[in-house]
This record gives sequence, C-alpha cells and structure tokens, in this order.
Amino acid sequence: MSDLAIGVFDSGVGGLTAVKELNNILPNENIIYFGDTARLPYGSRSKDTILRFAKEDIDFLRQHGIKMIIAACGTVSSIINTMTLIEDIPFTGVLLPAVQAACSSTLNGKIGVIGTQATIKSGSYGRAIKTIRPNSFVLGKACPLFVPLVENGYTDRENKIAKMVAEEYLEPLKKEDIDTLILGCTHYPLLKDIISDIMGDDVTLISSGEEAAKFTQLSLLEQNLLNTSDKLGENIFYVSDSVEMFEENARKFLNDDVKGNVFKVDINC
Amino acid sequence: MSDLAIGVFDSGVGGLTAVKELNNILPNENIIYFGDTARLPYGSRSKDTILRFAKEDIDFLRQHGIKMIIAACGTVSSIINTMTLIEDIPFTGVLLPAVQAACSSTLNGKIGVIGTQATIKSGSYGRAIKTIRPNSFVLGKACPLFVPLVENGYTDRENKIAKMVAEEYLEPLKKEDIDTLILGCTHYPLLKDIISDIMGDDVTLISSGEEAAKFTQLSLLEQNLLNTSDKLGENIFYVSDSVEMFEENARKFLNDDVKGNVFKVDINC
Repeated sequence: MSDLAIGVFDSGVGGLTAVKELNNILPNENIIYFGDTARLPYGSRSKDTILRFAKEDIDFLRQHGIKMIIAACGTVSSIINTMTLIEDIPFTGVLLPAVQAACSSTLNGKIGVIGTQATIKSGSYGRAIKTIRPNSFVLGKACPLFVPLVENGYTDRENKIAKMVAEEYLEPLKKEDIDTLILGCTHYPLLKDIISDIMGDDVTLISSGEEAAKFTQLSLLEQNLLNTSDKLGENIFYVSDSVEMFEENARKFLNDDVKGNVFKVDINC
Repeated sequence: MSDLAIGVFDSGVGGLTAVKELNNILPNENIIYFGDTARLPYGSRSKDTILRFAKEDIDFLRQHGIKMIIAACGTVSSIINTMTLIEDIPFTGVLLPAVQAACSSTLNGKIGVIGTQATIKSGSYGRAIKTIRPNSFVLGKACPLFVPLVENGYTDRENKIAKMVAEEYLEPLKKEDIDTLILGCTHYPLLKDIISDIMGDDVTLISSGEEAAKFTQLSLLEQNLLNTSDKLGENIFYVSDSVEMFEENARKFLNDDVKGNVFKVDINC
C-alpha cells in the first residue's frame, strides 16, 4: 500500500502549490492530481454544488490507486470543514493544517484569514481556530479578485493593479494588528511578495497548500504509509478541460517547478 | 407559435443585458432564460468544452416551448461564429448583430473589439467584420479581468481599480485611433461609463447584448412571429447553481431592471 500514489485535487492549478511542497519534502512519493478545470472556479459556487463537485473529484481519484487524498482547494476545505468525506484512507483538506500552523505561530492571538467568498462566508476558519485557541481574535476577508489576478499573471511584486487590489483587501486586517495571516486559497502564495510588502515583516504568512503537504508527511509517517522506494516519484495530472490550457496556466503559475504528464478526462460535466 | 417565449442563454448574469433590451423593445414577449451558473465562466474554457456546454444549454431551452433562441454570451457566439447550431427555429448569437452595427457606425473603418480570452483568440469578430467591410482595420483585445471586476461590483465610474485595469487594456485601441468599439462580452456594458471616459466621446460603443435584442425584433417581425398579445410578457429564469446567488448577482448587475422568478435546474454538470 505504501507504493500507492497520493491523490490531490483542486478546481484548477491552485493545488499545485501543495504538489510543489510534496515534491520537495517527499521526493519519492508518486502524485496523482485532478484539476477540475471545466468547472473552475469553485469559490463563487453554492455549498451544495461545491460538495457535489468534491465528491465527484474524490470518486475520480479513487479509481487510480491512491493511499491518501488531499483536497488542495481552500474552498472545498472550508465547506467540508472537519466533515469526513473519506473513511477508509487518510484524508486532509488545507484548513486544519493551516489553522494548526497559525495557532502555533501567533503571539498576540490575532489571526487573519483571506480566501474566496465561499471560504470566508463559511466561517470555518474562525470556528476551527477558536476550537484550538478559544481566546483568539479572528478576522476573515474575502479577496474575490485574487484568483483572476493570479490566473492572468498579475503577480509581480511591482504590479500596480495587484498592489492596489491587495491594499484595499488587506486594509482592515492591518488595522486590527494581526500577527498571522492564513492564505486560505491555494492560489494566494503567488501574491506572497505583494501581501508581505503590505502586511509588513512582523506578520507571518501561512500558505495553506504548504501546510497541507507537511500534514500529509506526518499522516503517512504515523500510518506507516511513506513510500520507502529510493526512486524519484512521478507526478501525473488529469484535467477536465484542455490539456494545453492547463499546461499554459501551470507554467504561468509555477514556472517549471512542477513536472509531469497531463491527460484530459471526461468527468460528468 | 407567436405566443411562445424567446429563449435566451448565457453562462451567468451577462445575458441579462440582452433581456433588459428585449423587455424594453418587445414588452409583450415572454422570455425564458437559462444561466449556466454552475459552470461559468465560459470565457476561459477550451473551444470543445464551450461548444458542448452551448449544445446542452440549447437542449434545455428547447424543452420549454420557445420560438427563437439567443446565445447571449459573447464567448459562445464567437466560438460558433456563423455556424448554425439550430435549423428549425430562428437563432442568433451576439456576434453578427454587433458586427453589423459596428460596420454601419464606423466612419474611418477602424473597429476595436474587446472580449474574453476565448472570444479574442477565436478571431471571429475580425473575420465577420472583414466579410461585411473588407477594407476595415480590426484590433481585438482580451480583457480577462473585466468579468471578475463586474461580478464583484467594481463598476462605478470613479472606481480606481476598474479605471486602472481599463486604461491598461484600452491603451492599444486608443493608439490605433479606432472610432467604434464592440463590447464583445455581455458583461461589459456595466463598465460603459469607465470605457467611454477612457476612449472619449468620438468612439461609438456597441453593446453586443443590445444589438442581439434589436436583431431578434427584426428576425421575429420578418418571420411573422412577434407576439401580438397586448398583455405584458413575463421573464422566467432557470439557473444551474443557487437561486439566491443568481438573484444577488442579478441585483448587483442590473439593480431591479429585470424582473422574474428564478428556478434551480439540474443540468448534466
């Protein structure tokens, strides 16, 4: 069983930030990724629709011999919260790993959360943080233009438009003097430079994709499921829309940091 | 047959700009609208996927007793171009009506086209314009951030972010001294004030949704299919994601200019 792949899904390229970190800390693991590009973005859809899509994504990954599943999508993770979508193999979203990291990092107990509209509306981050650290102050802020900015390449540290949008979104978080900020959407690490310049050096940024990868390592170790092969692992990507468009977006998103073959699949959409 | 409704579809709320104009010029017509909100936006998807979605949208409308269909979606219209998706009843996209209006309006023969990435990449507007006016100069520019800006309410004439994005996109069109600009996406009329301020009074803006509505009037008149009832017509909206979210977006999009009941349907997605 430890030879099986880790299954990762997201609506598009965002989850690649988790794959990048998995490749980094677990180089011998095989990854099977599903990007539901024919139905992205999930962030502006209703809870029922997001839940249905997530179940279909999981069913797809299950057909490919996997030992663990990561919902590398901030929106799915916050909608399901701590709900168990899978019982028979290890599973994680990006919410709990990010919340644990934030609760360990904060000194003043003031934590900010940014994410899609669905993520912030769900209030899941706040509930999870207060379960672990009841006296925390949590401020959530939806940043609906961040995903389109990232997907259209507006990520350069000096990009005026991205800076102006980020300043508008982050203003209320700055005012509240938070010392830790959860990037609750796997696209947002691409705006890390801009966010960091605005928030200042004293605010720790938590990348939900990276934390999910670290959590996966612990989870596999604990269950004795780490791949013991000394061969380098392989990434295989499946997408529900065009292969070329995914490859182009992935390149824009992470340059050539993540490699692997991409195949088109017909999911029920 | 003339009592039947006009069927209109789009990926989301954009097509409501066509409905608004239909209600205005053909107040006695009944409208059945399908907004494929579970799968929007169409603008960033591949040609094959957009075509498949469009066919499913048409199949859905056909089940509801209609006498004509409008593809009130710039992306679908440019992908199908002059292709006939429907043979037995009148059909129009937004492309040809907008192109005809632009070719009648231009004095210097320099026409700009703005739309989603898929629309501009297709080159359909340019080909159609040159068929009607072979000596025209056509410049297309994709404006991928306009739809997210509109859908997140960044439409006020003085909105700094929308102005900055629009200035960046429209700069090359201004340089070429175009005198007519086709808004090739049904969302863009919401940014008309900002676009007009940048382009100046001498540039005529053509709203593709409005032109499609006017074309529909002519088409129904010609085929003797205009509703002769003296009762006010009714709008009925079907959406593939949440009713509440559509109502909220529609309100943001057009205030209360377009009225009607909204129902959720399960399309194959």
